[in-house]
Amino acid sequence: MTETLEVTEILKKYSTRIDQEIKEALETVDPETLRQASEHLVKAGGKKLRPSLAVLSAEAVGGTVKSALKAGASVELIHTFSLIHDDIMDQDEKRRGKPSVHVLWGEPMAILAGDTLFSKAFGTVLKSEEDGVPPELILPALQTIVDSCVKICEGQACDMGFTERLDVTESEYLGMIYKKTAALIAAATKSGAILGGGTPEQVEALSEYGRLIGMAFQIQDDYLDVASSEEDLGKPVGSDIVEGKMTLLVVNALEKATPEDRERFITILKEEGDENVSEAMEIMKKYGSIQYAWQVAQEDVNQAKNLLLDVLDDTPARDALLKIADFVLERSH
Amino acid sequence: MTETLEVTEILKKYSTRIDQEIKEALETVDPETLRQASEHLVKAGGKKLRPSLAVLSAEAVGGTVKSALKAGASVELIHTFSLIHDDIMDQDEKRRGKPSVHVLWGEPMAILAGDTLFSKAFGTVLKSEEDGVPPELILPALQTIVDSCVKICEGQACDMGFTERLDVTESEYLGMIYKKTAALIAAATKSGAILGGGTPEQVEALSEYGRLIGMAFQIQDDYLDVASSEEDLGKPVGSDIVEGKMTLLVVNALEKATPEDRERFITILKEEGDENVSEAMEIMKKYGSIQYAWQVAQEDVNQAKNLLLDVLDDTPARDALLKIADFVLERSH
Repeated sequence: MTETLEVTEILKKYSTRIDQEIKEALETVDPETLRQASEHLVKAGGKKLRPSLAVLSAEAVGGTVKSALKAGASVELIHTFSLIHDDIMDQDEKRRGKPSVHVLWGEPMAILAGDTLFSKAFGTVLKSEEDGVPPELILPALQTIVDSCVKICEGQACDMGFTERLDVTESEYLGMIYKKTAALIAAATKSGAILGGGTPEQVEALSEYGRLIGMAFQIQDDYLDVASSEEDLGKPVGSDIVEGKMTLLVVNALEKATPEDRERFITILKEEGDENVSEAMEIMKKYGSIQYAWQVAQEDVNQAKNLLLDVLDDTPARDALLKIADFVLERSH
Repeated sequence: MTETLEVTEILKKYSTRIDQEIKEALETVDPETLRQASEHLVKAGGKKLRPSLAVLSAEAVGGTVKSALKAGASVELIHTFSLIHDDIMDQDEKRRGKPSVHVLWGEPMAILAGDTLFSKAFGTVLKSEEDGVPPELILPALQTIVDSCVKICEGQACDMGFTERLDVTESEYLGMIYKKTAALIAAATKSGAILGGGTPEQVEALSEYGRLIGMAFQIQDDYLDVASSEEDLGKPVGSDIVEGKMTLLVVNALEKATPEDRERFITILKEEGDENVSEAMEIMKKYGSIQYAWQVAQEDVNQAKNLLLDVLDDTPARDALLKIADFVLERSH
């Protein structure tokens, strides 16, 4: 619990400067309706995990906060863009405790708001030159961020394709969450390391650290959905099962279960209501799928931490990155 | 007519290499559904006006075709992305004679296909380094392209806002078409001039040339809607009036008409059917609005051509750019 509090402090440390970069990027958007729709979700909060990772990665390789501030803001803008478009695609009406952008402004304006954030994201990182970063570093940092955007789209398309399938393999599932979630986190840490002037080994290790904690983050989400409490989650336990979502737990149980249990499990996944959720959770427990997901996330985090210990000096920034890796598993929602 | 044919030849000259760049950018998109949805509109054709302008601008300042090929492909990808998202927003079911992306794959996949093209667009121009372009030129070229993307979003938002208003001024209208249409064409010519190693004066002149022919292009569209024939247009004359769209002709007539004519004109604009379209056209003719739009487009093109004559040597590329400027006005659809 103490650890979690400390991480909150770490994330807060940079959020004012990140918020300022994002504010500057969006305040000139015109007409006003588009500006408001573009700013809505940014103003609704968010942990600012990704931009903090970018800045800490720059610091951890001996660079300045300033060098990666715009790249961090860029990654946060891309994250927000993807949330706005995902909410339209999934018809989700709430986000960060507020109505989604398309609920408030309609789908056409929400599509445009997402496109605007996306454009501004690239514009922001390009402006890193103003902060004294040489073009030779901006280009590969930007390339990293752009590549992750393609992956976000591909990951979302994969996820959409999964809803009609019950034969998703673990490898397919892990590939999907890499693209949909982990690639952008890896882009945050990698671009930060590049802009901070890291060695190729440091850049590679921080990229891999970002990928691993990104994977662990998503798998922990899957795990908490059945292992946490309604009070901590802010929604009923087992929501993923009710929605018939593919998670590492579900994929694992489908792979391991006897034909009989598998059939029963599938029936529950396809059901609309929540009356048999606890039975589905029993099946997952029986085949060790809940424990399995927890282990995979744990191993990813351990590996991520070891990578940093190998290539980085012992600094407060490295310490913060190690703490954030632990935080991914310690959070209860 | 001879001139128009020549321009078609000019555009064809580069289209194979542009198509190849776009193909390479998209062929790795995975899963297949997303790749198909992303490629659909690219494969459906298009004149490739924007990428040709980028390449010709590079050549006109003494650079190589190669230096601006990826920027050209990038601009074409952005144009295509904006068409896909616009078709969703405007619920247009056809594009380039084929069903729109959202009609074939549904709105969620069409949003994603647009986002994918958008991401790939930036990735493509970043790869210009492989073609020997130095980072110092890639960054400002990319900044130009990114800035135009923000404007495209803003222009579309303005256009959406206009449908509920009848007091749109000429200056507001021109500002909207600059952002929605001309900014990307200006980005094509400006980025081409930058990548080709043009002087600041040449870059500025080619940027302004692109803006002016982009404005003329849109105004000519407005003009042809009432001044062309159904045969040439491929749709009934006066469609914009039936749809109640703001065009330079409509804005001009609304500004100049007597209160009585204005009221009648507004009534027709708000009507669903097409029975009074010819009466609306008579009102526009009475106040010289059709002639006015033609003149504005003509002046833009003349100014665009003069700018080039001032700063560019007499080369085949300059000649091609002059011909394209004329072509904007000579086309009948």
